[in-house]
Amino acid sequence: MVKLILVRHGQSDWNEKNLFTGWVDVRLSPTGEKEAARAGELLKEKNIHPDILYTSKLSRAIQTANIALDKADRLSIPVVRSWRLNERHYGALQGKDKAETLEKYGAEKFQTWRRSFDIPPPEIEDDSEFSQANDERYNDVDPNVLPKTESLALVIDRLLPYWQDTIAKSLLEGKDVMIAAHGNSLRALVKHLDKISDADIAGLNIPTGIPLVYELDERLNKTKEAYYLDPKAAEEGAKKVAAQGQKK
Amino acid sequence: MVKLILVRHGQSDWNEKNLFTGWVDVRLSPTGEKEAARAGELLKEKNIHPDILYTSKLSRAIQTANIALDKADRLSIPVVRSWRLNERHYGALQGKDKAETLEKYGAEKFQTWRRSFDIPPPEIEDDSEFSQANDERYNDVDPNVLPKTESLALVIDRLLPYWQDTIAKSLLEGKDVMIAAHGNSLRALVKHLDKISDADIAGLNIPTGIPLVYELDERLNKTKEAYYLDPKAAEEGAKKVAAQGQKK
Repeated sequence: MVKLILVRHGQSDWNEKNLFTGWVDVRLSPTGEKEAARAGELLKEKNIHPDILYTSKLSRAIQTANIALDKADRLSIPVVRSWRLNERHYGALQGKDKAETLEKYGAEKFQTWRRSFDIPPPEIEDDSEFSQANDERYNDVDPNVLPKTESLALVIDRLLPYWQDTIAKSLLEGKDVMIAAHGNSLRALVKHLDKISDADIAGLNIPTGIPLVYELDERLNKTKEAYYLDPKAAEEGAKKVAAQGQKK
Repeated sequence: MVKLILVRHGQSDWNEKNLFTGWVDVRLSPTGEKEAARAGELLKEKNIHPDILYTSKLSRAIQTANIALDKADRLSIPVVRSWRLNERHYGALQGKDKAETLEKYGAEKFQTWRRSFDIPPPEIEDDSEFSQANDERYNDVDPNVLPKTESLALVIDRLLPYWQDTIAKSLLEGKDVMIAAHGNSLRALVKHLDKISDADIAGLNIPTGIPLVYELDERLNKTKEAYYLDPKAAEEGAKKVAAQGQKK
């Protein structure tokens, strides 16, 4: 039996500003740092010992992992980073104010881009200050593969090959794996693991900073339902995430 | 031209306690964290952009790298950890008080173990609380290869293959490399790069928390002398390290 531990990063500097973030590399807020520390304390309390860490290429997920593993006394484990674990690319909306976007495009388009399964926002222009077209951290990726916008369906398309070829391999080697990533990349993975339908995934909200643990057998089938290390806080956190989606 | 950036971790929790540390996994003190932050600020100020990070398996070096790269805005670079960058293994002296050790073994032995090039202290017993014989972070290493004590000569023996096969390869691929490690593993590397004799290396003191930069050509030969990013602080820091060695 191996464990897969999913951790969604906490509050970032842009949360309070009400801006679409996506691939823009904003950092954790002090609140987000506290959430990460709490995640690490939970790992330690519950005797969860990841053997290897996978992160996105975005600072807020990496900060979360660094802080959590520090608290959990697991700093020395190997680390692998990939753009395939990045947050959903929010296209032309990246860096835009949510209220202004709602006003400019209307409620219908706005809600479609936020919640539909497979309709992405318009592509971001390469010369936008919020584009990653010239971000050297992706220099090792074929530029034709890097997204300029994404729906959740497109996130799944680019995440699953990495899950199958790389992360699953670590689990099959008997390693407990921790993934530090984002609301939508983790939803994509949970959708796959829990076989959630395209229609139902819109209702799934993953709370920030609370490790979600899958116990898997040698064929990577779940031996029981996944569980949060702090179920009560997870429930409250999920409600908060859901309310955010409705409010704005 | 590529850059190799060496960073020695700063003060640890055991510095003030006057204990031999070696492979014991103590953490940075608050002062050590500040030194790491300063290292990152220097990287940023001087426009040094490492493309890949190598660290030891010890928390104090990993903390230093995490803090420094955070400050330098380089969190997303790939990370590789190896026991071959660990501090010199201090054998049976690990965890021992320095003053007590001096009293017990006498000044001659004490100084020999601290400063001779190739005479290691006695081996540590596997059942010592300060042994790493059962430390799972080294589970992926052949137990026959893991040291139970080391001289500086033995550190060089286990570090150079990693330099040649792995770190040098990153440099030959055109990457700027940062290494976050320890007083003696970095002395071993500097001895090799600067062709310092066995006799002279005892006099070399690397200050903590100040990046030391090598500029290397495509054959990995130095194009000029290595330099510290804050030469004045480095001079003072080296004097402090040298004084520590004499005092105790």
